[in-house]
Amino acid sequence: MREKLTGPKREQALRALPGWREADDRDAITKRFVFRDFSEAFGWMTRVALVAERMDHHPEWLNVYKTVEVTLSTHDAGGVTELDAALAKIMDGIAAQIR
Amino acid sequence: MREKLTGPKREQALRALPGWREADDRDAITKRFVFRDFSEAFGWMTRVALVAERMDHHPEWLNVYKTVEVTLSTHDAGGVTELDAALAKIMDGIAAQIR
Repeated sequence: MREKLTGPKREQALRALPGWREADDRDAITKRFVFRDFSEAFGWMTRVALVAERMDHHPEWLNVYKTVEVTLSTHDAGGVTELDAALAKIMDGIAAQIR
Repeated sequence: MREKLTGPKREQALRALPGWREADDRDAITKRFVFRDFSEAFGWMTRVALVAERMDHHPEWLNVYKTVEVTLSTHDAGGVTELDAALAKIMDGIAAQIR
């Protein structure tokens, strides 16, 4: 899970994650989530935080009212791993339950 | 509360908020909070989120593991108001309870 994703494996992982893209300035993936309001955005963050803590793998995220800009990368690996892909999928899943 | 803070009033407000400083790129105040770990950081955010929602005044915040970079500004006023100073003080108060 903590091996860096590169080449076709990485492309395949990203294709399976709609809305996620490569970060501009570093080896990471990023997505902007938009909710109805702050309460919905922070509720989503709270559910994700519990999963992230259990995984011992945490997002970087910027919350501005109803939006959350997420960046995922695995510090130990110096880039994107399957752990990031797994957390990205969980984030999408929880967001899908809300809408 | 929603009147823009300028001049001596603003200086006075900032002096009463240790660790807070003017943002570099816009009319806002900012502070970096550092906690013991993610759980403590997100626990603090959750308590602040409840207050922010009650105030109907929300922070911009970037959480990276145990750190939270907060930026406060009042959108309607296009700058820093007493509402921001009040939320900053509450954030400091909740952080002080944790340590």
